Amino acid sequence: MDKRPTLLLIAPGKWGTLWIDKLQAGPIRLVVHGRDAYATDAIDYALSFRPPPGLLKSLRNLKGVFSLGAGVDGFLENGDYPERVPLVRFVDETLAVEMAQFVVMQVLIHHRRQRLFDAAQAQKKWAQMVLPRRTEDTRVGLLGLGEIGLLCAERIADHGFPVSGWSRTRKAAPRVTSFAGDDERDAFLGQADILVCLLSLTRHTKGILNAGTFAAMPAGAFVINVARGGHLVEADLVAALDSGHLSGALLDVFETEPLPPTSPLWSHPKIAVTPHVAAISQPGVVVKFALDGIAAFERGERPDNIVDVKTAY
Amino acid sequence: MDKRPTLLLIAPGKWGTLWIDKLQAGPIRLVVHGRDAYATDAIDYALSFRPPPGLLKSLRNLKGVFSLGAGVDGFLENGDYPERVPLVRFVDETLAVEMAQFVVMQVLIHHRRQRLFDAAQAQKKWAQMVLPRRTEDTRVGLLGLGEIGLLCAERIADHGFPVSGWSRTRKAAPRVTSFAGDDERDAFLGQADILVCLLSLTRHTKGILNAGTFAAMPAGAFVINVARGGHLVEADLVAALDSGHLSGALLDVFETEPLPPTSPLWSHPKIAVTPHVAAISQPGVVVKFALDGIAAFERGERPDNIVDVKTAY
Repeated sequence: MDKRPTLLLIAPGKWGTLWIDKLQAGPIRLVVHGRDAYATDAIDYALSFRPPPGLLKSLRNLKGVFSLGAGVDGFLENGDYPERVPLVRFVDETLAVEMAQFVVMQVLIHHRRQRLFDAAQAQKKWAQMVLPRRTEDTRVGLLGLGEIGLLCAERIADHGFPVSGWSRTRKAAPRVTSFAGDDERDAFLGQADILVCLLSLTRHTKGILNAGTFAAMPAGAFVINVARGGHLVEADLVAALDSGHLSGALLDVFETEPLPPTSPLWSHPKIAVTPHVAAISQPGVVVKFALDGIAAFERGERPDNIVDVKTAY
Repeated sequence: MDKRPTLLLIAPGKWGTLWIDKLQAGPIRLVVHGRDAYATDAIDYALSFRPPPGLLKSLRNLKGVFSLGAGVDGFLENGDYPERVPLVRFVDETLAVEMAQFVVMQVLIHHRRQRLFDAAQAQKKWAQMVLPRRTEDTRVGLLGLGEIGLLCAERIADHGFPVSGWSRTRKAAPRVTSFAGDDERDAFLGQADILVCLLSLTRHTKGILNAGTFAAMPAGAFVINVARGGHLVEADLVAALDSGHLSGALLDVFETEPLPPTSPLWSHPKIAVTPHVAAISQPGVVVKFALDGIAAFERGERPDNIVDVKTAY
């Protein structure tokens, strides 16, 4: 009889193919949800990003769940997570590095007017100009100052931008002006010429990018959302862009992913869309995270980065 | 009689308008070449980027010349520079910061496949993918490791890329693999997956981006030229792109600027063109550089950053 622990992989098909071979090489029995028939009582561990409602609750012998992403909102938003089962968040330095690359790139594309130069090239037009706004006058505000937010803040400050951050509790980072709590939110927003959302999605942060938030920002501000689609009220963003109050937005995450071809976001002239690529971990790193975590549980230990299911942090 | 020193501004019309008001407010008499009539013997100082051949030599009482750019090739390439007159190079920290922003942005746009996602958005296509090449396997090589090159190297290394540099003499920079001299050039090129040209234009570096250089680089490599158009043999680049050996290029500088609408570079599918905007100093900084330099000369001092006209450094 096979004594290896059984891992259930619950993931969209195209990602699964990146991991299945590597997972199968590990000291586990792999079951792929949707592809393989399985008895729910036989599942020891699950690896997922956004499991179907009720599924995890039906796995009565589950000993641990691993999140494929840094955010665990996909597990907790339906309120049906089996609280007795430890939920392990994916924490990976390469994820923070990738996010910082992406955020710095998008801040610079906006600040250096790269899209204007792309459009000028298409018309064979030499659009040389001095930057309309100096770097030291372009304030970047990060919503969320966790480990990823702090790395992004450092990389942005390196390029000469004044950087601030907003979080639940005040953070001590030498080059970041820290705003904390609801009382300081409007003061934070009022000085964010470029706003980057890096928050976890919880019931407190859902819809935080809304009409009130945009109105509190300086005229001509730019919005970058690399957190979750649920943070953004899409209609409010479109209204703030169409009124001319905001100058543009870069969206990497959406309420529905893949973003449907019918979405008006695709063709809005002030919105750049990327397909949830700000931080995608290399398959080898994800597989190691799951296999190391399973090994820890099997030795009777608790892996690092177990989430407090009540607060989602 | 007006005892103020006379400064001759020799600059393309559209830039001149940015500086003229600010220069006129200084303790000098301003003469604008092309706009104002002037006696050549009355000129004490000149501020220019690329003076017409023979013009500086005709100014017999010239006491100093100021370069509007960090590079002074525009003064020296015709061999008619009046060697007795000190030539002062524009050195400005904001210029290095701007260059580092631009180079990091272009390295990331290539590495993170941003142009592919832009094209996918135009087709409303969700092109999600894992990065085809890991950051730690993407080696960035800088041709030129002066003060600007070293700052670019630091900013690129911050994002996890292995960085090397090539210069005449070996440099000691903790995170940069330093290659030096002709003997090590091919070894340097052989490991440059992304090559960034930041060299001064001299008779030694003219045409350095040529077929031999491209052939020495790894297959699929990417070229960024933010130095001078004279560094690049355009036909050799197009051939290396069309053969598939190089994967793409970003060009900010050109042999003829503005790049003529007839240039095939505008519409090459693997070439991105920007209009010499990698590092443009703020008008106030340029004006201060010239006025401070004139004041130093008038006090009988020599300003910093006087160029050795023989070596062009």
